[in-house]
Amino acid sequence: MKFYKDYRVQYDDCDETKRLKLTTMINMLMEVSEAQLANTLGSAKAMNEQGRGWVVTQYEFHVKRLPKALEAVKAWTEAAGYNRFLCYRDFGMEDLEGNELLTVHSQWVLFDLKLRKMLPTDPDLVKGIGAPKLAKVPRFKRLRPLEAYDSSHVYRVRYYDLDTNHHMNNGRYFDWIVDTLPRDFLNQHVPVRIDLRFDKEVQYGDEAQSWLKFTRTSQEECLSQHLIKVGEDDMALCEIAWRKSL
Amino acid sequence: MKFYKDYRVQYDDCDETKRLKLTTMINMLMEVSEAQLANTLGSAKAMNEQGRGWVVTQYEFHVKRLPKALEAVKAWTEAAGYNRFLCYRDFGMEDLEGNELLTVHSQWVLFDLKLRKMLPTDPDLVKGIGAPKLAKVPRFKRLRPLEAYDSSHVYRVRYYDLDTNHHMNNGRYFDWIVDTLPRDFLNQHVPVRIDLRFDKEVQYGDEAQSWLKFTRTSQEECLSQHLIKVGEDDMALCEIAWRKSL
Repeated sequence: MKFYKDYRVQYDDCDETKRLKLTTMINMLMEVSEAQLANTLGSAKAMNEQGRGWVVTQYEFHVKRLPKALEAVKAWTEAAGYNRFLCYRDFGMEDLEGNELLTVHSQWVLFDLKLRKMLPTDPDLVKGIGAPKLAKVPRFKRLRPLEAYDSSHVYRVRYYDLDTNHHMNNGRYFDWIVDTLPRDFLNQHVPVRIDLRFDKEVQYGDEAQSWLKFTRTSQEECLSQHLIKVGEDDMALCEIAWRKSL
Repeated sequence: MKFYKDYRVQYDDCDETKRLKLTTMINMLMEVSEAQLANTLGSAKAMNEQGRGWVVTQYEFHVKRLPKALEAVKAWTEAAGYNRFLCYRDFGMEDLEGNELLTVHSQWVLFDLKLRKMLPTDPDLVKGIGAPKLAKVPRFKRLRPLEAYDSSHVYRVRYYDLDTNHHMNNGRYFDWIVDTLPRDFLNQHVPVRIDLRFDKEVQYGDEAQSWLKFTRTSQEECLSQHLIKVGEDDMALCEIAWRKSL
């Protein structure tokens, strides 16, 4: 069942083109799922008490249009299903007329916060959140690190990057990914599809290298491929298909 | 006249101690004043059309308690007055019982965005927002750069740090200021009073040095003094009085 939350996009939620930042978009969607889970075993509070946490492993975003400053939107989420080890959750945003702005598929694991290891799906938990058991495993894009990238920037995890689970806020990765692209490019292009996979957790104080490979795929379209590394470890992979904004 | 807006503090608004981040706090307060100004000459939209912008020159924060994740709060603002060149605005947050959480005084100038220079106060504008003319000039703390600091970190303005006025978001300065303090300290202390002065605008791509001088003033209290520099230029000065959190 879809769960909805109303938002009015604020100026500080937006980049300088007045479009919703991808960082804020993720945070909004996480708020909606937190609101849906509030009185279940899956809520941040209940999970914390049991020493468990949700860890996202992959997102797939399809963007028709990013909402603009002061626009009213409806964000939604739905538990899409689960299997033995993975839970799936969909998200979206609509304008007030019900037109789709964006949709998101995502894949999650349950994590033992003390032992730092994956847990199998908890049947009581998924029952409480109304997720169906899936016979078929949903497929996400297989992202692979490239042999070579064009350029990189260095980023360090800051105190305010940490969330209440003591990890780097998920949305913050977009800060590091998007910032490797030139300002002029970002002001003239919008994302159409984004695949983002998390492999390892970036820790407080870590210096991460955010690598970029940029390819123009047609006159109006581009592909940016991203790898975030800490030392020799691959932490996250991302691909963004862009089109020229109107 | 005070203008109120209701908020529920979200997890992603908070640091790892589950207290509201100072960066988010500023953004919330800016949203409240934007909402109050919405249909006046002082709104972001109207200002933009006239090629003008509000530029804050100093903030003074008094913090009794920072709200926590999922807490409902009322944020308020009020045009406190104006004189020939400066406008003053107060802000605050209260819990639902009306207990004060924090109050803020601030000082603003009107800025010509094309000519990059200060404008005198516009009588029509201040009339529209109900600000009284002040006979006496409100005094803010006189912050001065120190002869020497203890340590510094380097920060670069990123794409998502830019606001819709193409400047670095005001709240972002707190990111650079707070991050110079150790994580353990931040997890065990809360700000009581903050004075923050802006001298020059940090630009996209600038590498800024955020300097820190730390002084223990008593067993329970500390003072941190901050200077943000770009090259030889002083961009912002800040002092934060801290107390041990309970």
